[in-house]
Amino acid sequence: MPILVMKFGGTSVADLDRIANAAEKVKREVERGYDVIVIVSAMAGKTNELVKWVNETSGFYDAREYDAVVASGENVTAGLMALRLQEMGVSARSWQGWQVPINTTSQHGSARFVSIPREHIDAKFAEGFRVAVVAGFQGVSAEGRITTLGRGGSDTTAVAFAAAFDAERCDIYTDVDGVYTTDPRITSKARKLDKISYEEMLELASLGAKVLQTRSVELAMRYKVRLRVLSSFDETDETSGTLVCDEEEIMESKVVSGVAYSRDEAKITLFTIDDRPGIAAAIFGPLADAGVNVDMIVQNISEKDYDEAHSGAVTDMTFSCPVDQVKLAKKAMEEAKAAGKIAYDELIVDTDVSKVSVVGIGMRSHAGVAAKMFKALSAENVNIKVISTSEIKISVLIDRKYMELAVQTLHDAFELEKSV
Amino acid sequence: MPILVMKFGGTSVADLDRIANAAEKVKREVERGYDVIVIVSAMAGKTNELVKWVNETSGFYDAREYDAVVASGENVTAGLMALRLQEMGVSARSWQGWQVPINTTSQHGSARFVSIPREHIDAKFAEGFRVAVVAGFQGVSAEGRITTLGRGGSDTTAVAFAAAFDAERCDIYTDVDGVYTTDPRITSKARKLDKISYEEMLELASLGAKVLQTRSVELAMRYKVRLRVLSSFDETDETSGTLVCDEEEIMESKVVSGVAYSRDEAKITLFTIDDRPGIAAAIFGPLADAGVNVDMIVQNISEKDYDEAHSGAVTDMTFSCPVDQVKLAKKAMEEAKAAGKIAYDELIVDTDVSKVSVVGIGMRSHAGVAAKMFKALSAENVNIKVISTSEIKISVLIDRKYMELAVQTLHDAFELEKSV
Repeated sequence: MPILVMKFGGTSVADLDRIANAAEKVKREVERGYDVIVIVSAMAGKTNELVKWVNETSGFYDAREYDAVVASGENVTAGLMALRLQEMGVSARSWQGWQVPINTTSQHGSARFVSIPREHIDAKFAEGFRVAVVAGFQGVSAEGRITTLGRGGSDTTAVAFAAAFDAERCDIYTDVDGVYTTDPRITSKARKLDKISYEEMLELASLGAKVLQTRSVELAMRYKVRLRVLSSFDETDETSGTLVCDEEEIMESKVVSGVAYSRDEAKITLFTIDDRPGIAAAIFGPLADAGVNVDMIVQNISEKDYDEAHSGAVTDMTFSCPVDQVKLAKKAMEEAKAAGKIAYDELIVDTDVSKVSVVGIGMRSHAGVAAKMFKALSAENVNIKVISTSEIKISVLIDRKYMELAVQTLHDAFELEKSV
Repeated sequence: MPILVMKFGGTSVADLDRIANAAEKVKREVERGYDVIVIVSAMAGKTNELVKWVNETSGFYDAREYDAVVASGENVTAGLMALRLQEMGVSARSWQGWQVPINTTSQHGSARFVSIPREHIDAKFAEGFRVAVVAGFQGVSAEGRITTLGRGGSDTTAVAFAAAFDAERCDIYTDVDGVYTTDPRITSKARKLDKISYEEMLELASLGAKVLQTRSVELAMRYKVRLRVLSSFDETDETSGTLVCDEEEIMESKVVSGVAYSRDEAKITLFTIDDRPGIAAAIFGPLADAGVNVDMIVQNISEKDYDEAHSGAVTDMTFSCPVDQVKLAKKAMEEAKAAGKIAYDELIVDTDVSKVSVVGIGMRSHAGVAAKMFKALSAENVNIKVISTSEIKISVLIDRKYMELAVQTLHDAFELEKSV
């Protein structure tokens, strides 16, 4: 029988009623003829409770024990879901990570998949079981210790199972009904996409449309797993939600698919640094060590092209990071300067910026997207502070007060309210 | 290094403070030179929550899934306890049932031990770990499914580990500070026993002094595991609590060690039944099938020794059971009568009785205990309705209103307030 993977996140299994609701959706797919692998998260709030206990028990905790405690939340949901399905007449069995086994590396808290042997679950399907309910977010190391994949790892578990079992599709049930051209809270013209390519989804996810975990989309892209995002709170059918798939499968293709944003960005500029080989490493090494998530980086020739205080060419370096990491970043730079590893005249922080991006696979073959974007923003007097581009994305840093305006303007400019 | 097993029940690990308190006691034993195996229950209330969820999810639940859900409570405690010990500088590792592995039968919900291989835990001790924190109450079946031993199974886990690891002792930390000559709520003269034999403990446990699970005492007796009951809320040292041990180890031996009681008993009498071979089976078979825990049984010749309605000899049959099983028992008897399997003229129920017992290993070699007991009760005008005896116990069924009086009277009569 064809296999379908269905994943339910924490809010979708937050209580017994919601577990029952999710089970109904599983039952419907069984009736359509699928053998189903269900991946479940912990009931909403449970993981936080466990994490809190761990933190209160131990300052610098042992990640092995953290994992052993925290993974228990998913086990409870898996058992309850299997029971609910049985109660509805569907033959189901729960699976914890070690039972499958979901073999992972030993990096506790952020383990990666090594292998997911099909043998045991296939044997149960062969016995006539129709559903395997698998505890998401966890696995087992070669040492026989419970591992976790990090928060949100249940999406990744779902995709990994879809790949391992050659599933027809991997349906991610969540609290939104799909992927939108932009945030509907910013413009009512935002439109749900029927399909989106892996590449676009990756750019949208990492830019703040937090529907799917980035890692799960990467994995889906690598193994060509067709991923569907849909709501666990609506009535759903085979056409609901948004399908994240290979671009080959997307017939109609707009140049731009969506407008993403990230509200709380900061821009940090180091003025008058030595323009020498290795200077980028000297700056961004300490930032990475300090745990700063540097996003955009722009290096530009300093206005003061040659400075008496410096022996060679000088330059300025600008980068962006989340606002709440500014202190970390400043400290890392000041320490590097004090240690003589880098030299700069001044460090200027602007904490009132946001990032707005247009994303679209069609950019690859269409010129003029950047020009159109800049023109539209200019027409609204939105000043662009930093620009960075990739093959399918153009991002700009602007003053935060213009963020909503910019998103609305770009959504209009690229006519995203229209389907094709 | 010598091995000590320490077990902490649900109230002893009810929250993070109590887990920390228990960890202190473990640390002290490590400092005394023991390698310690700690058996933990779920945090008080957690198992009930999980059981409630299972019951609300599924009417006739699958015991495999019940076990998978319910066992997770102990896993959380095990991880937290290991973290707490690490925080205190004690090298500890948590162990779930399947990791040890604790091999059990497949009787989910009431599994029995098959084997507890020492290999993995011994290897950790050899590496320098000083504490293995084991999730109690659970195991793993040959099919790789999680099993549970039934409520209270953590005591049994502790004893099984003590046997498997040749532990010097198995300390059961609970919310009482030991085993008493009788319930201190009934008489302030009740005295804590320093030592008690397995046999006496078994009689006391099954009679209502619910300090230790009967099964754990049976197991301790079979493997000669020295069992100590002590309070997790008091300061404790090597002499605290009560040691349950082989009678050889008990130097001073009183004839009677304790007075036990069971308040809510019922007495059921079937009048005028055929006195034929197989009649006991015909009566107690249906009662067992209905789940009635029959305790005392007395068969006596009917006053109406020969009855016209019966073709042969007749008799009366009296038995006791918990009050809340009277309905079940009546129904089972009436159905058996209707089906023609048994015949009786009348079924009389007395729901206002209690059982009081004196227990003591010394009875084996001392005559006159029964006579002394009956005389003491008679002096207080307590009427005895049913008597049953075993090698080390004499039990009587009396009107409930006399229960406290009877316990106090017997405690005085056998001078239990005095040690030896």
